[in-house]
Amino acid sequence: MASGDSKVYRASTTAPVNIAVVKYWGKRDSKLNLPTNSSLSVTLSQSDLRTLTTASCSASYATSPETSSDSLLLNGKPEDVTGARTQACFRELRRRRAALEAADSSLPKLSTFPLRLVSENNFPTAAGLASSAAGFAALVRAVADLYELPDSPAELSLIARQGSGSACRSLFGGYVAWREGKAEDGSDSMADQVAEAAHWPDMRALVLVASAAKKGVSSTSGMQQTVATSGLFKERIATVVPQNMARMEKAIQERDFEAFAEVTMRDSNSFHATCADTYPPIFYMNDVSRAAVRAVEAINAKAGRTVAAYTFDAGPNAVVYYLEKDSEPVVGTFNHVLGEVEGWKKEVLAGLKPTMSLDEGVAALLKSGISRVIMTGVGEGPQKTEEHLL
Amino acid sequence: MASGDSKVYRASTTAPVNIAVVKYWGKRDSKLNLPTNSSLSVTLSQSDLRTLTTASCSASYATSPETSSDSLLLNGKPEDVTGARTQACFRELRRRRAALEAADSSLPKLSTFPLRLVSENNFPTAAGLASSAAGFAALVRAVADLYELPDSPAELSLIARQGSGSACRSLFGGYVAWREGKAEDGSDSMADQVAEAAHWPDMRALVLVASAAKKGVSSTSGMQQTVATSGLFKERIATVVPQNMARMEKAIQERDFEAFAEVTMRDSNSFHATCADTYPPIFYMNDVSRAAVRAVEAINAKAGRTVAAYTFDAGPNAVVYYLEKDSEPVVGTFNHVLGEVEGWKKEVLAGLKPTMSLDEGVAALLKSGISRVIMTGVGEGPQKTEEHLL
Repeated sequence: MASGDSKVYRASTTAPVNIAVVKYWGKRDSKLNLPTNSSLSVTLSQSDLRTLTTASCSASYATSPETSSDSLLLNGKPEDVTGARTQACFRELRRRRAALEAADSSLPKLSTFPLRLVSENNFPTAAGLASSAAGFAALVRAVADLYELPDSPAELSLIARQGSGSACRSLFGGYVAWREGKAEDGSDSMADQVAEAAHWPDMRALVLVASAAKKGVSSTSGMQQTVATSGLFKERIATVVPQNMARMEKAIQERDFEAFAEVTMRDSNSFHATCADTYPPIFYMNDVSRAAVRAVEAINAKAGRTVAAYTFDAGPNAVVYYLEKDSEPVVGTFNHVLGEVEGWKKEVLAGLKPTMSLDEGVAALLKSGISRVIMTGVGEGPQKTEEHLL
Repeated sequence: MASGDSKVYRASTTAPVNIAVVKYWGKRDSKLNLPTNSSLSVTLSQSDLRTLTTASCSASYATSPETSSDSLLLNGKPEDVTGARTQACFRELRRRRAALEAADSSLPKLSTFPLRLVSENNFPTAAGLASSAAGFAALVRAVADLYELPDSPAELSLIARQGSGSACRSLFGGYVAWREGKAEDGSDSMADQVAEAAHWPDMRALVLVASAAKKGVSSTSGMQQTVATSGLFKERIATVVPQNMARMEKAIQERDFEAFAEVTMRDSNSFHATCADTYPPIFYMNDVSRAAVRAVEAINAKAGRTVAAYTFDAGPNAVVYYLEKDSEPVVGTFNHVLGEVEGWKKEVLAGLKPTMSLDEGVAALLKSGISRVIMTGVGEGPQKTEEHLL
């Protein structure tokens, strides 16, 4: 109920992007966004990639047509918040705030005010970097902070999951698992932190952004086509992913890069294989992506050990994981071919001598197909900030 | 034993190429070339694609260094016949001839003479059209004819299988299955005819040959990498292929093109998915191949029913199956984009009006990547001929 209070309440947060090393692909329940398998991701550093979201609410919003309904402005453009996913997040967050208000009548009735959210990414949407994960994590975190909810990040991940499955993993920093859960109502399908960023300080990621790639099949639609039509998919969820999850957690705990890398590459291959086995087939990787695979293989062969791991999401961009001490073979080799594109960090390049050349055909594909790179590392979960967008 | 007989015995045969619609990929026994699963192929017309082989032997060959060892000249170049595969074929054929000679002493002892084979393909090797199947089928058939063996084509397929697995299917025309068999010694792993070519007279095939594509991983090596490393492969051999074999045989028996097409496309996708799931991943299809997939999907969508089916072997070439009555949407659409390349049959094109345009990107990829086409149909098994190459 309107209290005559025209105060504008607000809370801002930044939230990270995460890149899965054991992929989420397939829902067992579309409405609740419950997955067919567990997944595990690396949270990327917010210095390089982050969503900043300010969540605000006010009784006064109700009095003006532009703000009387919930709204979200993303990178300056109004977003549709009427969809089931965003509504599920708002509804659940409001429910928890309303419970606090019912228990303490002195609390302002924020749950009853329209919400006005403003959000900005510090990376281009055209980079195809799964900004919905960062976006929904920021939305949930910001509104939770606005509402002063006592819920843990794990409990908030339950809500973020309903906005966008992989968003639940962006509620934490470092290395994050999304446990598939068993409950029909999804009350145990949530994220937890496997290890914090500082656990493995040398981990780095190099993103190779494929230029102007046409948007492929949406993840939500694609994964359900895979569930429905891929004859090989059953084996992935029954056997391959559970094994990969166990191996990946162990590799992270032990800081075993060779094991981390092998599981990362094999899980990416497995995921894309089930996409290719879908009917009609889904092809997210293109010849440029495959050139990146060959480049990583060549770098590892030259080094005589595994120093780089590729992984691909639902798009042609390559994310290459490596350790800082192996910057020369990894960054050096890619920089030798892609030195002209934006994104290289001069301070990292200084002193790196390229130690090898890539196959001509591979180099040509990379040169023609990669429009920019992003050099980053592993970072923290959502961070409260006083930088407000309204 | 040399009999002083300087007569040159010879027999010539032509043998066809076959393109699998349920793929062979994976050996359960490398030495005997026993597969992990059954497979089924369409024998293409020899008017368009064939190997001609003349097998000869003579006591007089033993007296000259150039001919005293078995030899094979393929398209004018000497081939290595000392490898285990070719030796297995020669050994088995000689064994059967020797048995005839032991039972009838009047027979010339052909099994003891050096063999001299000359072989020619009427299609370019660069077309990447699995000429080893036609080649080994011709070799086995020609030597069997030379030796006047009474063995059936099915029994001869057992021998051809040891030369090159898929060669066993080229011992028959029409629609041919290679039953995986159960016996450890491979005595029941052989081919049989599912239906003759005349059973379905309207079936056609259009091969889109990708230009100058670099040769990928060899089939023999690749399939064993898949067996060893693909987590999804188990499901393919346990469930997917058996189902596909049953559905395919039914579709052929009933001349049900929609079912034939769906199984063909899905099995090709499944096979390539297990290649992508191999570690390191094997990529036989490229962006041009995928453009062909999209083109077929667009043609089917426009027609409102399935009029074309794609399939890909261990390389980027597309083979598109269709029925003669649907030449306009299928041949017409591809000809509209690829009219400049060689291989179109003018008599088929006459009167075809292109009914649709393909997506710009798809058309551009096809134009840039397809160097020739081959229009063909379904044909017969090996044919005796008096056309001798020596």
